[in-house]
Amino acid sequence: MTVKSDIEIAREAKKRPIQEIGAGLGIPSEHLLPYGHDKAKIGQDFINSVQDRPNGKLILVTAINPTPAGEGKTTTTVGLVDGLNKIGKKAAVCIREASLGPCFGMKGGAAGGGYAQVVPMEEMNLHFTGDFHAITAAHNLLSAMIDNHIHWGNELEIDERRVTWRRVMDMNDRALRDIVTSLGGVANGFPRQTGFDITVASEVMAILCLSRDLNDLQKRLGDIIVAYRRDRSPIYCRDIQADGAMTVLLKDAMQPNLVQTLENNPAFVHGGPFANIAHGCNSVIATTTALKLADYVVTEAGFGADLGAEKFMNIKCRKAGIAPDAVVIVATVRAMKMNGGVAKADLGSENVEAVQKGCPNLGRHIANVKSFGVPVVVAINHFITDTDAEVQAVKDYVAKQGSQAIVSRHWELGGEGAVDLAKRVVELAESGWSHFAPLYPDDMPLFQKIETIAKRIYHADEVLADKKIRTQLRDWEEAGYGNLPICMAKTQYSFSTDPNLRGAPTGHSVPIREVRLSAGAGFVVVICGEIMTMPGLPRHPAAEQIHLNDLGQIEGLF
Amino acid sequence: MTVKSDIEIAREAKKRPIQEIGAGLGIPSEHLLPYGHDKAKIGQDFINSVQDRPNGKLILVTAINPTPAGEGKTTTTVGLVDGLNKIGKKAAVCIREASLGPCFGMKGGAAGGGYAQVVPMEEMNLHFTGDFHAITAAHNLLSAMIDNHIHWGNELEIDERRVTWRRVMDMNDRALRDIVTSLGGVANGFPRQTGFDITVASEVMAILCLSRDLNDLQKRLGDIIVAYRRDRSPIYCRDIQADGAMTVLLKDAMQPNLVQTLENNPAFVHGGPFANIAHGCNSVIATTTALKLADYVVTEAGFGADLGAEKFMNIKCRKAGIAPDAVVIVATVRAMKMNGGVAKADLGSENVEAVQKGCPNLGRHIANVKSFGVPVVVAINHFITDTDAEVQAVKDYVAKQGSQAIVSRHWELGGEGAVDLAKRVVELAESGWSHFAPLYPDDMPLFQKIETIAKRIYHADEVLADKKIRTQLRDWEEAGYGNLPICMAKTQYSFSTDPNLRGAPTGHSVPIREVRLSAGAGFVVVICGEIMTMPGLPRHPAAEQIHLNDLGQIEGLF
Repeated sequence: MTVKSDIEIAREAKKRPIQEIGAGLGIPSEHLLPYGHDKAKIGQDFINSVQDRPNGKLILVTAINPTPAGEGKTTTTVGLVDGLNKIGKKAAVCIREASLGPCFGMKGGAAGGGYAQVVPMEEMNLHFTGDFHAITAAHNLLSAMIDNHIHWGNELEIDERRVTWRRVMDMNDRALRDIVTSLGGVANGFPRQTGFDITVASEVMAILCLSRDLNDLQKRLGDIIVAYRRDRSPIYCRDIQADGAMTVLLKDAMQPNLVQTLENNPAFVHGGPFANIAHGCNSVIATTTALKLADYVVTEAGFGADLGAEKFMNIKCRKAGIAPDAVVIVATVRAMKMNGGVAKADLGSENVEAVQKGCPNLGRHIANVKSFGVPVVVAINHFITDTDAEVQAVKDYVAKQGSQAIVSRHWELGGEGAVDLAKRVVELAESGWSHFAPLYPDDMPLFQKIETIAKRIYHADEVLADKKIRTQLRDWEEAGYGNLPICMAKTQYSFSTDPNLRGAPTGHSVPIREVRLSAGAGFVVVICGEIMTMPGLPRHPAAEQIHLNDLGQIEGLF
Repeated sequence: MTVKSDIEIAREAKKRPIQEIGAGLGIPSEHLLPYGHDKAKIGQDFINSVQDRPNGKLILVTAINPTPAGEGKTTTTVGLVDGLNKIGKKAAVCIREASLGPCFGMKGGAAGGGYAQVVPMEEMNLHFTGDFHAITAAHNLLSAMIDNHIHWGNELEIDERRVTWRRVMDMNDRALRDIVTSLGGVANGFPRQTGFDITVASEVMAILCLSRDLNDLQKRLGDIIVAYRRDRSPIYCRDIQADGAMTVLLKDAMQPNLVQTLENNPAFVHGGPFANIAHGCNSVIATTTALKLADYVVTEAGFGADLGAEKFMNIKCRKAGIAPDAVVIVATVRAMKMNGGVAKADLGSENVEAVQKGCPNLGRHIANVKSFGVPVVVAINHFITDTDAEVQAVKDYVAKQGSQAIVSRHWELGGEGAVDLAKRVVELAESGWSHFAPLYPDDMPLFQKIETIAKRIYHADEVLADKKIRTQLRDWEEAGYGNLPICMAKTQYSFSTDPNLRGAPTGHSVPIREVRLSAGAGFVVVICGEIMTMPGLPRHPAAEQIHLNDLGQIEGLF
């Protein structure tokens, strides 16, 4: 049997006109702004009109710490929605948009895989509905206006050495990480060292994803700190008078995008903040809108549960006033084996012992998620080489943790393969068991919030931070930012800050290298280790192979 | 009487669904890719299917040398189409897309004015259908791949000092004109001085506008020269293997956009190359498609006829195999007065003598355009302060040149105000008088082509070029580029290279500062004087005033 590639499966999709998908959610076609025949934005007026409806059930899909074997979080999210629809629930996907940059670097997209995909896959991995381009433009308008303000006399007395606002591009371009601008003489302004980040790392992206509506968006944009004066007092975006024009540029981007799964179920694909220096979930407006239109909304959060689910709960749910009714933790037999010490090349052969040895990583994620007061089910995303004994080892382990692990074959079979998982999810969500609470209260001091996450989620012994960082946190508390949640930026590969420390480590320290205030997005970023905000291309980027074939189809994107 | 602003008139427009506008041109709705309810792209398959149809009549709208008083070229283009439809002709507009950058700098858009506008005006001045963002992404992917190639070992032996390919952003940002990239150590590549241009100045933009189809597009992208080796041999985009992925990024952007005039007539708005370092007309694919679908296609070219019409004829018509059936030269009484020496503040009072004194500028454009073998009509774009005597002075002058000047009141009255102009255009176009030929043959040596334009269009005595430039031109001839047309880059304010020399100067010299080869676009750029490829923002950019009002409408864009 030859296995079809994701793109081959996607091309064979029998897509319905997007108006039909919208109609299934009760969206009249005049409130659906089409982008081609298979993508649409949902009009703001319609969104406003459904605010009084009750919410559907919210399901979060998260995962173990990622391994090179892959877990299939998006694939499971999509498969679960198709499975829920198979058992008669009106369910919708809520996932992030893909960044253009990485598409041209390494292979791999963000639309699921196998028979659990969202389509049109090619367009979702390219320009889609232009949201990221709008964010890039809004971000860079502010950058241009800052340098322009300095150029024309600097009335605000910006300290040119303390301009923190950089520029962004949706591209993997290492040459732009660290640059000097405004060379060439008087007409070009004052030379200054700065750089570009990738668009998904923009605070504008995080803001768009956390804003309730356009008014909230403009307020948050205005709150961005772009620079400091000599006396360290902050300069806000509002002082530069860029917030109005940025809001205009983001007007359409704020409207959630609607597409469909291979099985013609609705998928909201909107926003895509970095999962390290931002919170890594799709937009609040997409999730809250979907909750008004569907009985079940299945969403995911970036990286493993230690980063993704923690931020989903402590940042997104807190800010949006929503709460998950159940959480799915995705694991694979292969990833358990890697956690158990098996090399990637040896994953093909049965090794029950390694599976068992790797399970504690999963176990800790289960306990962590439960500590938020939400019920958990483990989805074993099935791979063809998994043996019955290996699968049983995972099931047994999970049962001992007081939860249930269910094999899901959505990659191979679509929604039909996820029916068991869907049934369990419904059982948990409708049990009324969930009594969600974030991990820490708003009024806890910032450093104590960091310690709470480090000890309760990472199971670390201590947080290390020098005096400068502790002072900075206290200064922010005095400036009125003490009530913000924490956005941790650490490696996704381990509970610890050491990417090679797999399994469920204890007794480690969490050293803080730097803290940053995202005053517009509304969180304090705590950076542990190196964070790359502008990726580079590999020696042979995927772009070299991407082209149109004779039929005008895109080749090489996957 | 209070005069309504352009944006107020645009907001009151009774737009028809874009499918109806498409249906009027015979485009089935499945071949019309909607972007919202009032914008669409025309599918490539449909475009292919109409290639065997006969062409409609092609009308070029050009103008005198621009003055601060404004001439209203786009307004006249739109008004003429509405006028042609009023007299029973199926006519369509073909104009360029607007650049985002300038919208946030100075006030002013690119969708016409008064009652002769194309809508939706706000979106046309913002992201529209994302074409410019796609061009930006394609351009910058190539930039990233060049630096990436050097970073990973530079197999092609690119001389890092001779990388000619810069980066682009659709923003007015003077800080990016001249920068040093790749600072920060080994991981970020080799430091290098370079810069950003505005997106409309990208060769990718010129290529998209001159390509017949996607195959032609990819070939031209591959032909771009991005750098040279130490031995001065060129490195092509094709060598970097970026042409395939760039074509994929531009796939949708290649499809022409359809919108409508205030009077619900079709408008193709597609492409927008700079009128100095590129040829300054809308895309070939939009114009040739419109010619298959409408009886009359009215298009315009950037700046005055000395630059815009000359390049339209010698570059676009030559390359696309099309020819204008008639040319409209737009003039205003006010602009004639400015050419006659009146200051802008004094334009309100009658001054027949100044009008007469300014007319020779118009006269020379008439003669120049006729020298291409095409019939001419002058449109006097009427302004409320114009007196009958002043208008008559222009009419008398034009009559002496063997042409006719017709007052057009489309700004005030829409299509009804342009009926007389429309009738004369039909008369000329259907006379069969046009026997178009470009000014110079393909096989004329490059320097001689420059001299031909300078002497026959600018009425200069001589072209000044140092040995280095003459040698460069000969080298390109030897390399096989001798058959390319010339793309002149000089001030738009004068026939000469001195922007203050109004009227119809003679006896001047045309000094060449620099020549550049746009091997992908297929022309040699000849630069006379300073050319700004990245604008800056003014002291108080328009962006400071742009915002959403309480109704969610955009304010301050105009």
